[in-house]
Amino acid sequence: MEVITTGCIVAPKGFKAGAVYCGIKTREDSLDLGIVLSECPSTGAALFTTNQIYAAPVKYSRTTAQKGCIRSFVVNSGNANACTGEQGYKDAVEMARIASGCLKISQEEILIASTGIIGRPLAMDKIAAGIKGAAASLGNTPAHGNNMARAIMTTDTRQKDVAVRLKINGKDVIIGGITKGAGMIAPNMATMLCFITTDATIPSPLLNECLRKSADISFNRITIDGHTSTNDTVAIIANGASGVTISPNSPETKLFQQGLDYVTCYLAKAIVRDGEGATKFIQIDVVGARSKADAVKIARSIADSPLVKTAINGEDPNWGRIVSAAGYAGVALDESKTNLYINEILIFSKGMPTQNNLDVISASMKAGDINLRLELGLGDSADTVWTCDLSHEYVTINAEYHT
Amino acid sequence: MEVITTGCIVAPKGFKAGAVYCGIKTREDSLDLGIVLSECPSTGAALFTTNQIYAAPVKYSRTTAQKGCIRSFVVNSGNANACTGEQGYKDAVEMARIASGCLKISQEEILIASTGIIGRPLAMDKIAAGIKGAAASLGNTPAHGNNMARAIMTTDTRQKDVAVRLKINGKDVIIGGITKGAGMIAPNMATMLCFITTDATIPSPLLNECLRKSADISFNRITIDGHTSTNDTVAIIANGASGVTISPNSPETKLFQQGLDYVTCYLAKAIVRDGEGATKFIQIDVVGARSKADAVKIARSIADSPLVKTAINGEDPNWGRIVSAAGYAGVALDESKTNLYINEILIFSKGMPTQNNLDVISASMKAGDINLRLELGLGDSADTVWTCDLSHEYVTINAEYHT
Repeated sequence: MEVITTGCIVAPKGFKAGAVYCGIKTREDSLDLGIVLSECPSTGAALFTTNQIYAAPVKYSRTTAQKGCIRSFVVNSGNANACTGEQGYKDAVEMARIASGCLKISQEEILIASTGIIGRPLAMDKIAAGIKGAAASLGNTPAHGNNMARAIMTTDTRQKDVAVRLKINGKDVIIGGITKGAGMIAPNMATMLCFITTDATIPSPLLNECLRKSADISFNRITIDGHTSTNDTVAIIANGASGVTISPNSPETKLFQQGLDYVTCYLAKAIVRDGEGATKFIQIDVVGARSKADAVKIARSIADSPLVKTAINGEDPNWGRIVSAAGYAGVALDESKTNLYINEILIFSKGMPTQNNLDVISASMKAGDINLRLELGLGDSADTVWTCDLSHEYVTINAEYHT
Repeated sequence: MEVITTGCIVAPKGFKAGAVYCGIKTREDSLDLGIVLSECPSTGAALFTTNQIYAAPVKYSRTTAQKGCIRSFVVNSGNANACTGEQGYKDAVEMARIASGCLKISQEEILIASTGIIGRPLAMDKIAAGIKGAAASLGNTPAHGNNMARAIMTTDTRQKDVAVRLKINGKDVIIGGITKGAGMIAPNMATMLCFITTDATIPSPLLNECLRKSADISFNRITIDGHTSTNDTVAIIANGASGVTISPNSPETKLFQQGLDYVTCYLAKAIVRDGEGATKFIQIDVVGARSKADAVKIARSIADSPLVKTAINGEDPNWGRIVSAAGYAGVALDESKTNLYINEILIFSKGMPTQNNLDVISASMKAGDINLRLELGLGDSADTVWTCDLSHEYVTINAEYHT
């Protein structure tokens, strides 16, 4: 598996991208409307936010995704088209209609996504011009791919993308992806979007299954502040341009899944590393649980504790906050079997702190990457969650923003 | 119902309290060991943390509470006696044994509680001297009650106590309480403790029922940072010195419950107002829910969102964060029936922001008390949760603390 780091979304064969500034964002030096297009008919799959309050483009795109054919992603940043009522839904449909005309493909093959401020109507004249401009600028150079990655950013401080080249049956298959994240919610212009392309041929039910599996070990294992957005979308297009077909229950499926897992995990971690105000990347491994569900519950409880997050911000090996956050996750624990390692140093063993040197552990926490490993001693299941710390900068970003 | 604001824990007849500094806390001008004693035999009830990692005194006191007779609270601050293994449990038992000797009551009538740093052995020589000193200083003046309230404080910035005088069947019944809170967890010397006394006679099963009801609408309706401590304890002693008996299903029970509700709600709100770094007291009312359980789930989801808490810290009427936090609470919602009021001004109506003046709403948020009222339009159930904002000061307190 070879990793590609530029132009990722157009790295697979048969994909073009185009992005423009159309005036939705306030900064003129940024891009705010992008299109990805497969040059040939393709299958697709997508996952959406579980929030009960979801945006108009999510409502529209759920229908597109259900049909299993996606040929284009049309995405604007700067306005989430959420909490915009009936007009918002009409605007999402209109975006697809305009793109359909420009791209000469069926409206039903277009997935729409929006991210940015919520509760404000889309400036449809700007959006229409943007779609036309982006469609006119489509191309498959790395610059086209990089522009697309930048066009979906909001409070993100950097472009997040990756692609992998796999060898399947002696042929190249490429999977490319872009994502954006930062905080988690819209008025602060932050939601989670991820778009993936591949030149394999994959029937949409299998593609859907692969995407769910990958999302489950990546995007469903990260948390910045526990706040699920109204617009979260993860979508994939498979266009077959590589000449390689992935069939259910084949060895090829396994190779493809590995590649997709790599792309989604890389992108999910990139979101955490660029979390609002983040200074630390924290991997929480819970092992020895009775079930994977228990392990995830506990890892999430630790990851979402503001007390744990502030302690790590302060580079303090505060085992008590970590262990007690595990204790209120709603999973039966046995304190006398519980061990905690911080950066691989045992700090809490069988219900009590160890005598290991706290200064050494503190010093290890000056690194940007922090590992917490909690051993429960109750079973054979394990799971991992990634999160970031809670800093003054997070409070500044989120308290000083004004609606 | 008359409210008493000084010496509250000894305001009911037949109670004494004593508190001393015995050297557990580092600040010599503070008190760190206190005892409350009923002068006559009494009933009792208590509730404890649901955290799977719980302190030795919680383990010990659960047994005391189950027997239904509590005659004394023996409490130290500065060390939580949590994550201290078998020795910790022996120390908790030893505290009861020493107190039993000093107070001339059965060891089984003594409820032990500890709060403070975790993972460090109790200095039992200091604790023993403290118990003896506190027992020797018992008295029932307001000063005795106030000292007791201060002896349980850790990062609290102020004493929290209240008492009420009820008229039941022409006689006075008093209920007095003290509490401590601040953050929520021990290495940072913050846990939730509450001790209540009353001079009514109440059989312990009924007392237990009344305490559960009151705690459910008070301590179970607050959140500072969602982090449940290892030591949380709410306990009550009823000694009958007023000559008034409260029997099950009587009109007296209702009056007593009202008084107890007042005391616990007052104390719970006092904890929130003194939350670590809190600058705002936030009341979240969720109405029109299908069930009370749904209403609480949604109110908690809003209360625990760092994005909502930072927005309120910044006095920003960020309806999007509030509504979307409701949306991921795991309760089915209908956006088109949802209304949100901030400080009684409608800001979000039927799925969209209103045109009401944001400046007026922002100005109203300069007050210390903030009200959020979410109408779901789905049923007749309602509930309320209280929380505070998330400030730079919270991050400072919790990131700069060192284990």
